[in-house]
Amino acid sequence: MSGERSWSENNERVKKMAKHAIAVASFSIVLFILARQSSSHSFKSIFSRRAPKFLGRFSTSNPHHHYNDQRWKRLIRYQYETRYFEQRLDHFSFSELPTFNQRYLISSEHWAGADRLGPIFLYCGNEGDIEWFAANTGFVWEIAPSFGAMVVFPEHRYYGESMPFGSREEAYKNAATLSYLTAEQALADFSVLITSLKRNLSAEACPVVLFGGSYGGMLAAWMRLKYPHISIGALAASAPILQFEDIVPPESFYNIVSNDFKRESTSCFNTIKASWNALISLSQKENGLSQLTRMFRLCRELKNTEELANWLESAYSNLAMVNYPYPSDFLMPLPGHPIREVCRKIDGCPDGTSILERVFEGVGVYYNHTGEVDCFKLDDDPHGMDGWNWQACTEMVMPLSSSPDSSMFPAYDFNFSAFQEECWTNFKVNPRPRWITTEFGGKDIMTNLKTFGSNIIFSNGFLDPWSGGSVTQNVSDSIVALNTQEGAHHIDLRAATAQDPNWLVEQRATEIKLIKKWLSTYYRAKGATLLPNVETGNMANSM
Amino acid sequence: MSGERSWSENNERVKKMAKHAIAVASFSIVLFILARQSSSHSFKSIFSRRAPKFLGRFSTSNPHHHYNDQRWKRLIRYQYETRYFEQRLDHFSFSELPTFNQRYLISSEHWAGADRLGPIFLYCGNEGDIEWFAANTGFVWEIAPSFGAMVVFPEHRYYGESMPFGSREEAYKNAATLSYLTAEQALADFSVLITSLKRNLSAEACPVVLFGGSYGGMLAAWMRLKYPHISIGALAASAPILQFEDIVPPESFYNIVSNDFKRESTSCFNTIKASWNALISLSQKENGLSQLTRMFRLCRELKNTEELANWLESAYSNLAMVNYPYPSDFLMPLPGHPIREVCRKIDGCPDGTSILERVFEGVGVYYNHTGEVDCFKLDDDPHGMDGWNWQACTEMVMPLSSSPDSSMFPAYDFNFSAFQEECWTNFKVNPRPRWITTEFGGKDIMTNLKTFGSNIIFSNGFLDPWSGGSVTQNVSDSIVALNTQEGAHHIDLRAATAQDPNWLVEQRATEIKLIKKWLSTYYRAKGATLLPNVETGNMANSM
Repeated sequence: MSGERSWSENNERVKKMAKHAIAVASFSIVLFILARQSSSHSFKSIFSRRAPKFLGRFSTSNPHHHYNDQRWKRLIRYQYETRYFEQRLDHFSFSELPTFNQRYLISSEHWAGADRLGPIFLYCGNEGDIEWFAANTGFVWEIAPSFGAMVVFPEHRYYGESMPFGSREEAYKNAATLSYLTAEQALADFSVLITSLKRNLSAEACPVVLFGGSYGGMLAAWMRLKYPHISIGALAASAPILQFEDIVPPESFYNIVSNDFKRESTSCFNTIKASWNALISLSQKENGLSQLTRMFRLCRELKNTEELANWLESAYSNLAMVNYPYPSDFLMPLPGHPIREVCRKIDGCPDGTSILERVFEGVGVYYNHTGEVDCFKLDDDPHGMDGWNWQACTEMVMPLSSSPDSSMFPAYDFNFSAFQEECWTNFKVNPRPRWITTEFGGKDIMTNLKTFGSNIIFSNGFLDPWSGGSVTQNVSDSIVALNTQEGAHHIDLRAATAQDPNWLVEQRATEIKLIKKWLSTYYRAKGATLLPNVETGNMANSM
Repeated sequence: MSGERSWSENNERVKKMAKHAIAVASFSIVLFILARQSSSHSFKSIFSRRAPKFLGRFSTSNPHHHYNDQRWKRLIRYQYETRYFEQRLDHFSFSELPTFNQRYLISSEHWAGADRLGPIFLYCGNEGDIEWFAANTGFVWEIAPSFGAMVVFPEHRYYGESMPFGSREEAYKNAATLSYLTAEQALADFSVLITSLKRNLSAEACPVVLFGGSYGGMLAAWMRLKYPHISIGALAASAPILQFEDIVPPESFYNIVSNDFKRESTSCFNTIKASWNALISLSQKENGLSQLTRMFRLCRELKNTEELANWLESAYSNLAMVNYPYPSDFLMPLPGHPIREVCRKIDGCPDGTSILERVFEGVGVYYNHTGEVDCFKLDDDPHGMDGWNWQACTEMVMPLSSSPDSSMFPAYDFNFSAFQEECWTNFKVNPRPRWITTEFGGKDIMTNLKTFGSNIIFSNGFLDPWSGGSVTQNVSDSIVALNTQEGAHHIDLRAATAQDPNWLVEQRATEIKLIKKWLSTYYRAKGATLLPNVETGNMANSM
């Protein structure tokens, strides 16, 4: 937060326009944007901060969330049974804490059975309702029958229905009740669950294949490192396991978001880049906030510029994640190539349209593609108390910065002290920024993977801003990166569609081939014969 | 606890003489010996149970322990600094628990320094005072100078001075305060400590080599699996990582103890084998317990036969562990080949000496080698509240059984329900017998090691009863077993002596060669030159 820098199309001098950019669930940013400096004034905070999320607003498990309308439940088209497994709250101590019921979805419909060593496909549930992930992970459901695989989707603790202390309200009460919401506990949950499940089915010898996307992909990859005996391989899709401490440059995330816009249109990129100053400028005018409230059709009066900046940034980052080539409804209902649409709107306004009006037209693609919205609500999570915010404030400290030299966002250097203060204010908890790298490996994690890991597919789409923190190069013969230039956030995990481009069909076919190889090797070692469908090797075509 | 079996030299019919044999620190056994059955009586318990330990009475950290006279402190001949490191009580949650100070001993005297990538030799402290382990792990101190290595001996939490909650009394107060005494937390302690230590010294690139004996050896091996990025290799001496669930036959421990006696003398073995019934027989006579009290020169009146049986069994198991070929003072001051001495005493009694009198002469070698004892105290840990008992009652559930067909001990089948009840009675805690195998691997742990592990030396001595639960076969090119027929419990970690037999000198030389190889590979990968002394390759001779 030091150093002067001047930028902006409007030639305004901005002293500090800092994004408090911790990588969190929806990939939105927290903006600290400090005011233009006049000769007689010291810096003045215009924008304050807001906690962001990894996977969008649906990742929250707050039932009072106004966006959480569970519209996605209409999408559920897979058959499964819902069960509950009693878990310890702290696997790593013997404290007499109350246990909780972990929800898991299970389908044995196509399972070849224990005698035939039918595989088990285990999705590592991440920060949200597990039914939402099941609905959006069609790939696993679609390939399971050919593999004769059982499908299991365990929910991550503290999300969906898997609430310690009996209810979400109790689980999220304070730092003490939230303190067992960690990745290590989640990995132990998965390990204990699957071990018990296999034992009860006398299926101890059945191979487990892990799947996961985003944070779930990180869990899948980490599980290969920490519990290698539990599974034979993992498909870790869009899993930014390198986005900790100083393993990768902190600017990668916002650079990629920005490039996603620039590749569609330089003028679009430039308009967005100019919009931050335009926003500050207008907000400082007489009735500036009221004008912005009307211009952006907000449901209530804008309290400060920060709210609006966050709302805009959130749209851009989320758009970069779900920049799929066909219409989709993951975070929001969207057209195919949504960033292209945003830029078409921004660039297509009549001459004389202001920068802010253009930007408003653009984000409408994200927030109002269906055209049903009368007015926009900014504060989808006013208390910042959802689970991922807690995880980001404890161990998932992913430092993100942005630079106007390479992005369309204002300059921000990640500031740990400020972050720490904010976490203390919000949760009364101190982040441990070095814990993840101590636990799973830091700068040496690639060597660690190479030397000790095996059978991991790191799939990435280079449009996805998280690809900057992911493993995008082959690590060894069996730890491979499958990258696509045009892919966004774990598109490969989604159900096949008629509009799938070739590169996606090919990426999935390679994934299937690799999973088949892991299984073949396992079956050979066990002296078992392959399952017929797996042996024919034409599953990729069967989808 | 079912089935009838008749045995005993005295032709007595013993219905059940069951050892409650959980592998715990001092390797003593808990005996449940049920009475001879008469036609009109139901089974009657003569022996009840007692909690046993891994490494003998010195492993306790109870300062009120009457055996814990710290006589061993006289043995400290190595130079180190004592420091303290603030640790979280629960690494795997964010509970606001009080931190504690972990003691560690450190010597940089011979360290080649960070610039030269001087190695760090880290001993994984086990269940006792770390100064005791430092004093008894001469090998590490002796080889460190030639390697230019820093030496670090961190203490295991809840032992020695590394007490949570400010004092031993508070730390051992109840199940709640004890609940963070687990192996996983200890591994995290080591990882956090060494990472921080290296960072503070700008020594991030310095390779760490782990050492550990017994439970400490288990920690060293497990650390290679769970935190492979923290170290480059481990010498895991006498580390019974297979002694869980049903990975190895539960009888191995007592069979080895018994064979250690039989190889010295069959009549000695037979005398001990007959002594259990003799004990029961005498105890049931008029004034039997008084007679036994006098015969065994006990300091106070014997309350039941079990106390005495435990005391005897404890001596046999400990003798098997420290059956070193030269005089030593690890658990107790002992002559060289102490089991040979015990058997010489037992066999050497004049004709007509009773079985029990012979046995008393024998165990005198263990309990009174110095001849200074006036009377013997049986209850060295009357409350069973030491740390290892807690660990055995929580996650370190190592089922041990014994069979009179193959051992000199009465029949006992490990009974989990009874064990669970006892743990509940003693600690108000429920053991989790499947946790260690879920966490580190169970029946598949050898495959796990082979596929994911590297650079571990499992050193074993076949006289050591724990060798039955250890890795005694080469697992891969870099995970090797170094076995000696005549070695006892981690003798290789002890300081060199003039009386070291050739097989021990050779075992240590091979260990040095392998450690050197790990370092060479590491230095080559880093493009660094080897340290001069390491390069000459004549360290084995330098000792």
